[in-house]
Amino acid sequence: MRPIKIAVIGGGSSYTPELIDGLIRHHDQLPVDELALMDVDPERLEILAGLSRRMFAKAGVPTRVTTTGDRRQAIAGAAFVCTLVRVGGMDARIRDERIPLKYGIIGQETTGPGGFAKALRTIPVLLDIARDVVELAPDAWIINYTNPSGLITEAVTRFSEARIIGLCAGPFIWTRSVLHAMGVPPERANVDYVGLNHLSWIIRVIVDGEDRTDDAIEAAIAAGWRIDGDLMRSLRAIPCPYLSYYYHRERMLEQMRTAPQTRGEQVKTIEAELMRMYADPTLAEKPELLKQRGGGGYSDVALAAMLAIWHNRGERQYVNVPNRGAIRDLPDDAVVEVACMVDRLGPHPIVVGELPPAMRGLVCAVKAYEQLTVEAAVTGSYRLALQALLAHPLVPSYEVAVPLLNELLAAHREYLPQFDGGADTRDGANVFSLTSS
Amino acid sequence: MRPIKIAVIGGGSSYTPELIDGLIRHHDQLPVDELALMDVDPERLEILAGLSRRMFAKAGVPTRVTTTGDRRQAIAGAAFVCTLVRVGGMDARIRDERIPLKYGIIGQETTGPGGFAKALRTIPVLLDIARDVVELAPDAWIINYTNPSGLITEAVTRFSEARIIGLCAGPFIWTRSVLHAMGVPPERANVDYVGLNHLSWIIRVIVDGEDRTDDAIEAAIAAGWRIDGDLMRSLRAIPCPYLSYYYHRERMLEQMRTAPQTRGEQVKTIEAELMRMYADPTLAEKPELLKQRGGGGYSDVALAAMLAIWHNRGERQYVNVPNRGAIRDLPDDAVVEVACMVDRLGPHPIVVGELPPAMRGLVCAVKAYEQLTVEAAVTGSYRLALQALLAHPLVPSYEVAVPLLNELLAAHREYLPQFDGGADTRDGANVFSLTSS
Amino acid sequence: MRPIKIAVIGGGSSYTPELIDGLIRHHDQLPVDELALMDVDPERLEILAGLSRRMFAKAGVPTRVTTTGDRRQAIAGAAFVCTLVRVGGMDARIRDERIPLKYGIIGQETTGPGGFAKALRTIPVLLDIARDVVELAPDAWIINYTNPSGLITEAVTRFSEARIIGLCAGPFIWTRSVLHAMGVPPERANVDYVGLNHLSWIIRVIVDGEDRTDDAIEAAIAAGWRIDGDLMRSLRAIPCPYLSYYYHRERMLEQMRTAPQTRGEQVKTIEAELMRMYADPTLAEKPELLKQRGGGGYSDVALAAMLAIWHNRGERQYVNVPNRGAIRDLPDDAVVEVACMVDRLGPHPIVVGELPPAMRGLVCAVKAYEQLTVEAAVTGSYRLALQALLAHPLVPSYEVAVPLLNELLAAHREYLPQFDGGADTRDGANVFSLTSS
Amino acid sequence: MRPIKIAVIGGGSSYTPELIDGLIRHHDQLPVDELALMDVDPERLEILAGLSRRMFAKAGVPTRVTTTGDRRQAIAGAAFVCTLVRVGGMDARIRDERIPLKYGIIGQETTGPGGFAKALRTIPVLLDIARDVVELAPDAWIINYTNPSGLITEAVTRFSEARIIGLCAGPFIWTRSVLHAMGVPPERANVDYVGLNHLSWIIRVIVDGEDRTDDAIEAAIAAGWRIDGDLMRSLRAIPCPYLSYYYHRERMLEQMRTAPQTRGEQVKTIEAELMRMYADPTLAEKPELLKQRGGGGYSDVALAAMLAIWHNRGERQYVNVPNRGAIRDLPDDAVVEVACMVDRLGPHPIVVGELPPAMRGLVCAVKAYEQLTVEAAVTGSYRLALQALLAHPLVPSYEVAVPLLNELLAAHREYLPQFDGGADTRDGANVFSLTSS
Repeated sequence: MRPIKIAVIGGGSSYTPELIDGLIRHHDQLPVDELALMDVDPERLEILAGLSRRMFAKAGVPTRVTTTGDRRQAIAGAAFVCTLVRVGGMDARIRDERIPLKYGIIGQETTGPGGFAKALRTIPVLLDIARDVVELAPDAWIINYTNPSGLITEAVTRFSEARIIGLCAGPFIWTRSVLHAMGVPPERANVDYVGLNHLSWIIRVIVDGEDRTDDAIEAAIAAGWRIDGDLMRSLRAIPCPYLSYYYHRERMLEQMRTAPQTRGEQVKTIEAELMRMYADPTLAEKPELLKQRGGGGYSDVALAAMLAIWHNRGERQYVNVPNRGAIRDLPDDAVVEVACMVDRLGPHPIVVGELPPAMRGLVCAVKAYEQLTVEAAVTGSYRLALQALLAHPLVPSYEVAVPLLNELLAAHREYLPQFDGGADTRDGANVFSLTSS
Repeated sequence: MRPIKIAVIGGGSSYTPELIDGLIRHHDQLPVDELALMDVDPERLEILAGLSRRMFAKAGVPTRVTTTGDRRQAIAGAAFVCTLVRVGGMDARIRDERIPLKYGIIGQETTGPGGFAKALRTIPVLLDIARDVVELAPDAWIINYTNPSGLITEAVTRFSEARIIGLCAGPFIWTRSVLHAMGVPPERANVDYVGLNHLSWIIRVIVDGEDRTDDAIEAAIAAGWRIDGDLMRSLRAIPCPYLSYYYHRERMLEQMRTAPQTRGEQVKTIEAELMRMYADPTLAEKPELLKQRGGGGYSDVALAAMLAIWHNRGERQYVNVPNRGAIRDLPDDAVVEVACMVDRLGPHPIVVGELPPAMRGLVCAVKAYEQLTVEAAVTGSYRLALQALLAHPLVPSYEVAVPLLNELLAAHREYLPQFDGGADTRDGANVFSLTSS
Repeated sequence: MRPIKIAVIGGGSSYTPELIDGLIRHHDQLPVDELALMDVDPERLEILAGLSRRMFAKAGVPTRVTTTGDRRQAIAGAAFVCTLVRVGGMDARIRDERIPLKYGIIGQETTGPGGFAKALRTIPVLLDIARDVVELAPDAWIINYTNPSGLITEAVTRFSEARIIGLCAGPFIWTRSVLHAMGVPPERANVDYVGLNHLSWIIRVIVDGEDRTDDAIEAAIAAGWRIDGDLMRSLRAIPCPYLSYYYHRERMLEQMRTAPQTRGEQVKTIEAELMRMYADPTLAEKPELLKQRGGGGYSDVALAAMLAIWHNRGERQYVNVPNRGAIRDLPDDAVVEVACMVDRLGPHPIVVGELPPAMRGLVCAVKAYEQLTVEAAVTGSYRLALQALLAHPLVPSYEVAVPLLNELLAAHREYLPQFDGGADTRDGANVFSLTSS
Repeated sequence: MRPIKIAVIGGGSSYTPELIDGLIRHHDQLPVDELALMDVDPERLEILAGLSRRMFAKAGVPTRVTTTGDRRQAIAGAAFVCTLVRVGGMDARIRDERIPLKYGIIGQETTGPGGFAKALRTIPVLLDIARDVVELAPDAWIINYTNPSGLITEAVTRFSEARIIGLCAGPFIWTRSVLHAMGVPPERANVDYVGLNHLSWIIRVIVDGEDRTDDAIEAAIAAGWRIDGDLMRSLRAIPCPYLSYYYHRERMLEQMRTAPQTRGEQVKTIEAELMRMYADPTLAEKPELLKQRGGGGYSDVALAAMLAIWHNRGERQYVNVPNRGAIRDLPDDAVVEVACMVDRLGPHPIVVGELPPAMRGLVCAVKAYEQLTVEAAVTGSYRLALQALLAHPLVPSYEVAVPLLNELLAAHREYLPQFDGGADTRDGANVFSLTSS
């Protein structure tokens, strides 16, 4: 057995202790020899490396923690490459949240124009990582937890030969929460969960072979689910909380508009405090505060994926994967978030069939937006970027899309080199020229 | 050769003279023996019958005009059944236009909640007509010109064995207008036109074998097309004018809000004046005013369809037809508006392939709304009606959808017997009870 | 927990001890309370019941064995209904094997005209069982091991609401044999296995993440696989042994023609001997001779399926299941034999994609034959039966198909009531009339 | 209007006078300025050029006939490139007919191993022509009449950007013959014709809107159709005559075996006589004998295609075209022979839907063979060639396929340079080495 190396690109992330925690808990099943943390921020890198070493040491786990600012060095020879990057940092996220609000559109890390801008910044970087993986660790699996996870997985599967599994803790957390609210242990239930990343529904809950979807809805309502109860009864489905940005658009917008801080601003404060705590040489475990940071399920889903791959388990997991016919209504190369059987060859989607019409329209509309966004991110075409934004169900009109796009491109100019000067000459009067602004 | 009978259901329509005009012009190719006008309004029926007789007489065409208030009598033995019905009359249309505006949504006869309400009222009536046709004129073709034409064609093709061809003058007028603006005769051009009824795009214009789509866009802009020019350049397509309700949402809404009258109110005034003119026993031709009524292409497309069917021509026409694989991205039974070869067996769709992603999302979203609307209209399910309205891209949220639906159902209560008292008990607190209101 | 009852329809089968053996080995995981053996042959039923009781007793397993000649009584309240029927008994099988040989076609229980005749006899009986299950044990799963397993599963899934999982030991045995020949433990391998029941290929073998398909082929050759080695090298696949009837047609035909006995005749002798042994009141375990009977994997696959369903395991198994998009090249309702995830809701196919062209043609041709056979079996249409036989790749021509069909129908007349006198009048001169022969 | 040039590659073909005849009859609609005859055989080229000039002169048609041995010169600037090539000449055809007979398989120009060998020889040449067309006449349409027409059209559409329409006179002749036998003028009928080139069925005949398929079958029987009448009644379809090689395999084989000459040998004699007649300077029209040569419909279908393209007619024609979803059961890039609307952009398939199961299996099997053959022809892979031959429904087994393939490759060695020395090393012991034989 060759030694196991895991690379963490963006190892200075505040999430890293989650990963360490999982690696400690599962060390007997995945005895990692080297955890190679790579980050562009040397200070955060050293803080997280220190904490990671203390956590491993306290747990008696012999995993060696190495650090580097050289991505290729981290990747070389790895079995898994965990990606936790944030191009432009928290300040870029805050811009993604603030700018759409000016145009009367929700500002959110992954949904709407904010997710669009994040995708434009992040996809080229992930494709660079994928190229390095193909060259330096061709058998490795990219364990992606970087958002927007569906878009990034689609970009990498379409434009790279690298192996990638696109994770999100959402499906795990949401399905478990509903069962927990029902008082049903997961092993007695069958949950039909379909859609795209952050655009998904639980459309059926079977317990002991009996359809208990209506009970599941009532349990979710009682547990304070973020979607209106009568709506869920009408849909006969439990939408994921991110769907409140669609179903409860005005209310969510109002919340965002009147909030003293965006989520990014909150997280920035929390992260500063987390970094302070992480730097404390006496800390050797996840601090309580990390729960407020979010992403609590990261450890669970990342380890589950790595273990299923490593041990060739053939285990059912909800991940982001190219469709290939699983959902009738979507193209083959569209990445969807569905139940897969995960083994050493990665995720294999299980057949879904047709989406219910109440879900189909929104899924197809958002997927079209996603496909255009991926192509815009790869080509740097202004025209495609505009088509993408226009195709988004939350963008009301062309009159809004143009200035919004222009402001997003200008605000993130330094992270969008692919758009620099490359606007199509055919795009007409509203061509945005980053070089002349 | 058996004598040719054409039935006109809604024969008291102000459009009827258009049809007479077409029948006169093509009498040599389609020598109609009897034109059976049927209407629920005996006064309008007699006015239109009188004018029709005078028009035929003046043209020396021997077609006999009969009138009846009995739909079955009109249909029995017909070769073609033209449907021109308006359930609830112009007043219902005005409500369809006025009510959505209160909720900040465009009020329009076919697009948005207005078209939704019209579909709920009209689909059951068209299905009744279809049942009569199957029984009394099983070889007849329903030549549908009743709006929303795509939804009605989908309802009849899914829930009836009757033969129907769903017409709209739009594709004919729009493609011809663009070529006219380019100065290109139609026979030298190939125009790729795709989408749904009132949700379509010209995505390619070839002239003499050469791609001149960009020139077509410039010509459309110069001719004052109702869609922004830069947007058309970015899409590299010419959206049909109805797409302004999506692409230029706020502007169109503002126009509607500030207009002194809705389109329905204008038409009501024009129709009153038209009926006055039609009743003049000296009038024996279409009055000039009819052009302001709209629907100028009706004569052209209805006669083209009937002639292609009658003479088994195998002619290319843009009509509404079940998809059956023509557009990859839509289900088989979804009615689409595409180029068909029309012969005695009706319209046969020509393969399209995949929609461009910039169009795909909107088409799939509106089609999902349409499918839900058809099912709601047939079943009278409040739950499905709510799902339909929620699925419409112009309806922003659940919070808007519920009161809007309730108001539409209440306003049209007398024309929506299928919803009476039939609300699902499962729908929860927002169940609308027409009987208790 | 309610008590677990398993019904065995055809419980007098010589295979029953295999099932008992599995139930004993897995009693801790599937503590069966009642095993209800049902058979139309009371003598065999009592023999098998006696042996079953002795086997359970010796193993200290408290499962109660009941017997009945009333199918409905056996089925009522069962959790699993195992089907092991042989309509017409071994003599009918021998006719299935003998008759095609006269026409120069291989005579085989499941492949070719023999399997066709068996399907015609068996499908109506399985549909009767399925009706009883829907009525008397609506939550039960039919665990079908009756051949032709794919055709029967397709008939039941298309024409019944009963739940069925179509089993064959082949995929389990073949994939394990290849890995065993390679010296590779199954948990380190990923095997791509696709096709239809008894018409399948191993198209890829991955070991520890590395493609070792070529090695697998060499190992199979070295182990004496029943398919020519060079052919396997050319296909880059390992066909299942039944494919020798296609790839090595003349050789297999010659073997059958010159064999002193058909397989059915051999089995008949073995079964008589087995029954004699089973009747021995001192026997309390599977006799060694049973191995010669074949079907050794029955215990493994039946128990694996029942355990995965009962414990909602989400386990990867190769079973027969409606396609629903898993294999691109086949209709949705075509039953295919592919890797599924099996849980309490039964088998869920995992996406395959397109078949390699070297397999696609044969699979599509045999599937078309199967669909026609199912429809012929259900309707009793001579015309469809002829179309089915003609569509079979091993039937060379119409000139052969007609007398072969007529002889098969006549030979099995008493088991084919659905064909009695019901020949289509449109079938012309070759209409076979069972009543007049 | 630029002058119209038509190139004829293989202009020395005995069919050329058919083409001239058509060009004369339609000169007013397609006023060809230059007919550039190209052939590798200068003698035949001059004979055909002379006759062509005399035919044009006699008809008073001013088309100029030029000759060249340089393909590129002929193609440069052409509007249409007619391909009438026969790689290896009539002697190669005779080998295609003779060799399979030794193995008990029908020997035929397009069906079975003969067509396979012809495809291997011809596809590379057509791809060369296509390359020249793309370079030297990028707007030209290749009007392919070279057999096997479906395979060649598939090769060119998959591996070239050239525009091609794949013609066969069969569909025109067969559908017209059936209607003629019924005494029905074509304009009153709708004929559903589906399948692949030389593997097609008339599955429905509608006259004046009424289903008269059964009458059509009786009329075909009465007219001496080459397929058994009772079979047609059972299929409720009229198979094309080439299907006798499948449905009446032994009878057709026996005919071929006992015939004094193969069809190629007959044609060779006829062609020698035709050439002698063509060379007669007094001949200025098609000689009667040409009818015995076959291909009588060439003039009709070639001119129909050219006129529909040139005048952008949007006319319904049966041609070979990439499927793109028209037939549900076949891949998108599979070339099928179906009703198309032909206009300046070429053929657009009209939606068919699913094939009836009685046809589906054979169509899918032959299409898989065709796809493998195209890939073998392009790559020169022995392995793919063997897979192709094995996939053919008329090839009974691997034991037959291997020596048959080897003999075909050896017999045509000089025309199969792509196979020279290029056998895959992985192919094992039966690898055919052309260089060492």
